[in-house]
Amino acid sequence: MAKKPKLLSDLFHDTLKDVYFAEKKILATLPKMAKAAQSPELSAAFVKHHKETTVQIKRLERVFKIFGKKPTAKKCEAIMGITKEGAEIMSEYKGMPALDAGLAASAQAVEHYEISRYGTLSTWAKELGLKDAVTLLDATLKEEKATDAALSTLAKSVVNVEAEQDLQ
Amino acid sequence: MAKKPKLLSDLFHDTLKDVYFAEKKILATLPKMAKAAQSPELSAAFVKHHKETTVQIKRLERVFKIFGKKPTAKKCEAIMGITKEGAEIMSEYKGMPALDAGLAASAQAVEHYEISRYGTLSTWAKELGLKDAVTLLDATLKEEKATDAALSTLAKSVVNVEAEQDLQ
Repeated sequence: MAKKPKLLSDLFHDTLKDVYFAEKKILATLPKMAKAAQSPELSAAFVKHHKETTVQIKRLERVFKIFGKKPTAKKCEAIMGITKEGAEIMSEYKGMPALDAGLAASAQAVEHYEISRYGTLSTWAKELGLKDAVTLLDATLKEEKATDAALSTLAKSVVNVEAEQDLQ
Repeated sequence: MAKKPKLLSDLFHDTLKDVYFAEKKILATLPKMAKAAQSPELSAAFVKHHKETTVQIKRLERVFKIFGKKPTAKKCEAIMGITKEGAEIMSEYKGMPALDAGLAASAQAVEHYEISRYGTLSTWAKELGLKDAVTLLDATLKEEKATDAALSTLAKSVVNVEAEQDLQ
């Protein structure tokens, strides 16, 4: 018997599970980053994105429902690697002038992973005729892009003020 | 004795080593992706980006030189995770209609990681007064963005034509 062919709907489902895992990992990581950040503005940006992430997880759950599946998470190796690098920055640069620059950069790496995944999921949902899912995925995509842009601006300011000064 | 403070220049150096590792990993991965792709256009896009990656590695080596350091690679956990997901797609979707859609998506995840890292490195190089390094980093950043845009277009076409059809 021939193997059941894996179609775009399978790929969409697999990637949805991957991103669902990633968002939950990000949700758990952001409070640590907010606590670690030296700049109140950067810390506030992480708190804000933590709140957004809660909503983004709910949106993913609605996408699962539209797709007729239960929300399930599948380990996302990419986000494990990206957040591991962030954890290294938090430990190696703890109390150091360049900590915030490193934290902002780590967060931007996370945002870019999400931008790529939500862009892909939206394209596939369109192709699969899941119109309501496209609306939800595009709403999150827009937020991730806005967060990345805000972090770019913040990254420049934390770098300017603190990162090349010896504060000790 | 107080610990030597870690400054932006340390962070720049660490991240440069991380991206140098990532580019070498990507260089090794792209031929496998080109071989795996079913669409000649997607395969050609991977071959083209493989050539660009060779040049991008040379540019990084020039940035190391401008910065006064030898090119060294430091294991980049993020790219290890991202390429591991790509390898999973290659094995789980081998010979399947949705393979190319998955490959294009994996490549876009790689591009977005690079876009975030080159954006960060360019900002920091500017702050550190490494003008020639900024030019080199921005040249690569521009290429990565162009590759991502080309993959977005290709991703739509491979999805349209093949991914939801049962070819067996």
